[in-house]
Amino acid sequence: MTVLYKANLVRGAEWARFFAERAPGVPFRLWPDMGDPADVRYLVAWQPPDNIAATFPNLELVFSVGAGVDQFDITKLPPHVPLIRMMEPGITDRMVEYACMSVLALHRDLVQFIGQQRAQVWHELPPTYTSERRVGVMGLGLLGQAVLERLKSFGFLLCGWNRSPREIDGVTCYAGADALPDFLAQTDILVCLLPLTSETRGILDANLFARLPRGARLLNVGRGAHLVEADLIAALDNGALSAAVLDVAEPEPLPAGHPFWSHPRILLTPHIASTTKPETAVDYVLDTIARHRRGEELPGRVDRDLGY
Amino acid sequence: MTVLYKANLVRGAEWARFFAERAPGVPFRLWPDMGDPADVRYLVAWQPPDNIAATFPNLELVFSVGAGVDQFDITKLPPHVPLIRMMEPGITDRMVEYACMSVLALHRDLVQFIGQQRAQVWHELPPTYTSERRVGVMGLGLLGQAVLERLKSFGFLLCGWNRSPREIDGVTCYAGADALPDFLAQTDILVCLLPLTSETRGILDANLFARLPRGARLLNVGRGAHLVEADLIAALDNGALSAAVLDVAEPEPLPAGHPFWSHPRILLTPHIASTTKPETAVDYVLDTIARHRRGEELPGRVDRDLGY
Repeated sequence: MTVLYKANLVRGAEWARFFAERAPGVPFRLWPDMGDPADVRYLVAWQPPDNIAATFPNLELVFSVGAGVDQFDITKLPPHVPLIRMMEPGITDRMVEYACMSVLALHRDLVQFIGQQRAQVWHELPPTYTSERRVGVMGLGLLGQAVLERLKSFGFLLCGWNRSPREIDGVTCYAGADALPDFLAQTDILVCLLPLTSETRGILDANLFARLPRGARLLNVGRGAHLVEADLIAALDNGALSAAVLDVAEPEPLPAGHPFWSHPRILLTPHIASTTKPETAVDYVLDTIARHRRGEELPGRVDRDLGY
Repeated sequence: MTVLYKANLVRGAEWARFFAERAPGVPFRLWPDMGDPADVRYLVAWQPPDNIAATFPNLELVFSVGAGVDQFDITKLPPHVPLIRMMEPGITDRMVEYACMSVLALHRDLVQFIGQQRAQVWHELPPTYTSERRVGVMGLGLLGQAVLERLKSFGFLLCGWNRSPREIDGVTCYAGADALPDFLAQTDILVCLLPLTSETRGILDANLFARLPRGARLLNVGRGAHLVEADLIAALDNGALSAAVLDVAEPEPLPAGHPFWSHPRILLTPHIASTTKPETAVDYVLDTIARHRRGEELPGRVDRDLGY
């Protein structure tokens, strides 16, 4: 019952160390050193290998090494093999840190102040208090809920939008496409934490930006493909939006010369908002394998119709 | 019993509005329109006027409009007139926001990523978890304690240093000059929230930086004069420190051409971390005046020997 890991090898070495410590009886291998493919029961991958079904005849579970599964072509996975999202606590903690940092940065005009520093301008901007600042989170799964919970301590006015209805204490929740305009109309700082699916691809477009209050701010910690790049540039240039923090791009790495690098209203980080923490991820994988062997439900199992 | 306000006039107009609403019987005036100086009992000021004692013979209380009182020459205030620091909750909330934003930014390598964006480099840096990151706050008054309390929710390892001993749940506290080296030796992110006094002027110098773990990070939300500027540049350039967020400078505004503007390891904001919130400050001033008239102790009263 080999576990095969196919992703960043530096982190893979940490996975190997924690696997050896916590499940010494379970063979753990780092791609491409897979041994006999017939022994591979569990695959943990970022970009999955080609021909999964043919290569690994005894595969039982596939784990995405990240919170999203959009990098998988689900149609190429054997239908009887569950695909599991990474729902380990380390990834949540890191996302909460990054999202709080970025929402506070957008709230406190940090993108503007970075521009002022470059121009050597010392100029105060009028304060807006959190009690007047409306933060809206799109995507109310594990990550979205954890981010909202931490933002609550700062006193922001919070709302959320999700495909299916959610109830979160202290958060005004909206559900479904029909409710999206109402959600957007009262969101000063928009946080995208959606999964990337055929329904959400390109959702951050000119039409959406036009429904936000003028001068709203954007944080994209979803996927680069949620965003229509030209529409963001236009919205920043015409004042519909006043600043954006982006941790994701399409493609990654973002090519040199791309307008996002030098736009004065964009703060860009290289997809570092959150990464899976090997120590806690190994526990999550082992726990999910144990549940699977006992025939139990798997909390991170992806719905193939929904795509997340 | 006139209240005279001498500071930013835009905010002064807000003070006037809240005073009229909450204490319609109390004359409130904006400098320089002071009316008869003999009527002025309470002065709320950033930079105090010259010859206070001679100009305002019936002065009873002087309030600093900010949390610090270092801009006052205490020797020029009449000895019987208490000087009051601004301890209203709005100033605390804003400081907590800014300090959390900046500590998270230093924790998550944001200063480095801003430099990478400028150089069009997409490059991940290895993660450090909050459970391994030691944040040390110098100055454990109202603001320092509130900042530590909020940082706690992110899971940082917290310590604090103060002139006199303090006990704060979940925070390792050090007191006095003798304990400073031990405090510094285990502080990865140093936050300066000290009052500016003869003892703390220039405290952020080469000697202090050398006692921090190599590559430590600095947040100065105290005063510009806490910092020895040349020592900071040297420490950033020789790797003793890896990044600094500065909200204060000496003088302010920082002159064009100053090396802080363009240093790749410095993120600079124009003294906006926290400003007094007129709505809550008016309540604080009215409450302090009422306590004073009842002959009670005044919580924000400055100790003239300590200077804060």
